Amino acid sequence: MKVLITGGGGFLGHRLAQAIAARGALAGPDGREHAVTAIRLLDTAFPPGAESRFDCVAGDLSAPGVIERVLERDTGAVFHLAAVVSGGAEADFDLGMRVNLDGTRALLEACRRLAGPPRFVFASSVAAFGGDLPPVLDDTTTPNPQTSYGMQKVVGEYLVTEFSRRGFIDGRSLRLPTIVVRPGKPNLAASSFASGIIREPLNGEPSALPVPDTTGIWLLSPGRVIEAFIHAHELASAAWGVNRVVNLPGISVTVREMLAALARIAGPAVAARVTYQPDERIQRIVKTWPAAFRTDRALALGFRADAGIEDVIREYIRDQGLAVQG
Amino acid sequence: MKVLITGGGGFLGHRLAQAIAARGALAGPDGREHAVTAIRLLDTAFPPGAESRFDCVAGDLSAPGVIERVLERDTGAVFHLAAVVSGGAEADFDLGMRVNLDGTRALLEACRRLAGPPRFVFASSVAAFGGDLPPVLDDTTTPNPQTSYGMQKVVGEYLVTEFSRRGFIDGRSLRLPTIVVRPGKPNLAASSFASGIIREPLNGEPSALPVPDTTGIWLLSPGRVIEAFIHAHELASAAWGVNRVVNLPGISVTVREMLAALARIAGPAVAARVTYQPDERIQRIVKTWPAAFRTDRALALGFRADAGIEDVIREYIRDQGLAVQG
Repeated sequence: MKVLITGGGGFLGHRLAQAIAARGALAGPDGREHAVTAIRLLDTAFPPGAESRFDCVAGDLSAPGVIERVLERDTGAVFHLAAVVSGGAEADFDLGMRVNLDGTRALLEACRRLAGPPRFVFASSVAAFGGDLPPVLDDTTTPNPQTSYGMQKVVGEYLVTEFSRRGFIDGRSLRLPTIVVRPGKPNLAASSFASGIIREPLNGEPSALPVPDTTGIWLLSPGRVIEAFIHAHELASAAWGVNRVVNLPGISVTVREMLAALARIAGPAVAARVTYQPDERIQRIVKTWPAAFRTDRALALGFRADAGIEDVIREYIRDQGLAVQG
Repeated sequence: MKVLITGGGGFLGHRLAQAIAARGALAGPDGREHAVTAIRLLDTAFPPGAESRFDCVAGDLSAPGVIERVLERDTGAVFHLAAVVSGGAEADFDLGMRVNLDGTRALLEACRRLAGPPRFVFASSVAAFGGDLPPVLDDTTTPNPQTSYGMQKVVGEYLVTEFSRRGFIDGRSLRLPTIVVRPGKPNLAASSFASGIIREPLNGEPSALPVPDTTGIWLLSPGRVIEAFIHAHELASAAWGVNRVVNLPGISVTVREMLAALARIAGPAVAARVTYQPDERIQRIVKTWPAAFRTDRALALGFRADAGIEDVIREYIRDQGLAVQG
């Protein structure tokens, strides 16, 4: 079976490709397991080593002809992760609309022309929510996004659901918590600091905290979200029914709790490398995001969160092979 | 102030134009009342007499260049009613996407280029709802449409809200109940029968009922919905806040109750002109629609429903100048 991952050059996309390759098989549109014969990654750039291992295509999802080039007629699984991140889509409205909305639409339209409806996993986001929110959100909370990125993700969810109802795809949309700890460098995502305040201090570098340390964050580790992508793909169509969207489980922690956990694991001197440098633009976006959820449906469907913030930090240290003296 | 009404050749659009002309003034983007200097109607066709009274432009909203031609730089009020109706959008997916989704998007994009953000009233629909629904819906119920038309309306709502948040327009989306009694001929809307079973018998003609008479309908009269469009426009931006969508009030009646009211008003012989002729296609669409709502927010904002189904039928008889012997 052939697999396409958009945003495959990004951290999560590339890690997903590695996980699928290690697994060796995925459920096909017929619901049975099939050996994975090709993993194609679409992105504008790729990490070192990706090209030798996967079928990497450099291109812009929203540019004419690109999707037609990457989507083969017998593609059976599409993981759609490509997006202009929250800060980027807020800074450039037209770019966000083009990539996040038009790009998703074009990808879905292209899936109609395949030999059969592929399973289609869409990376949506907790940024779907905003406005007047209850302290704890649940599966009945209505998305009212207060960012362009969040709106584009919600519209993508509705398209995925409708294209599924029509039988053009077999879609599943996952609302991702903030993913912590991302390796590498800070990016334009408004949530970038949530990884930065763990990652930079562990690398011996200072890190700026743009929001008050009382800020609550709904987060999930890279390991759990990769598992979630694959689990979402593997679930039978009937398990989803007419509701193709799910809020993924996560853990709810404050920045203060994150820094306390970092201090316990790596020592207070490491945690002290984080300093508060208020950034109103980031605060304006982040304060619209929810910090706590009840995710009954996801748990019933078999999705799982991390046990706690210490596990999340230890997973990062282990994955990166860091030496830490706590 | 200049006004644009899309779908202005349709029953509601044309009646809205007449109501605005009779009123003579509307709140401008500055919140103050301004004399209406021009009412432009865009549609593919117009009722007799419309051209002499209003500035009618024949064209397809989703065709290149049409919006640019009809939207003048100093347009201060846009009422967006144009749509491929539910049955039509279900029968032709691509047509519905082009007109209902791309057309709405193009209209919103064109509004960004005006001298200032216009007030923008979007006719959404109760068809936004579907799937697993509570017996009585309320302002917290999450749209999960089970028709292409419903999905396209929900996406339109999210675009209107986002374009408002960005300051490109000052938007308001109204989820319309089924409008009863529409004059004229049946159309492709799956709800067309809800008017037909009152209208045709009063005109001495037979009428086919495609759904069981236990079917519940959430409805509103043409008179009340025209009032709602104007009221939605007139409300201050602050009254809407970050939530730009409202479920309009309506009344919840079964087909059986509608026919009983018709019999009381016009006699049992008239009501007997309705015969049950099951239509699975219509039933499949209509059964996904909700039949009862609590509309607290709309009532708090000053929107009003009809007093009951008899009033709705009597309004139609009065508007059409029909002679009825009950």
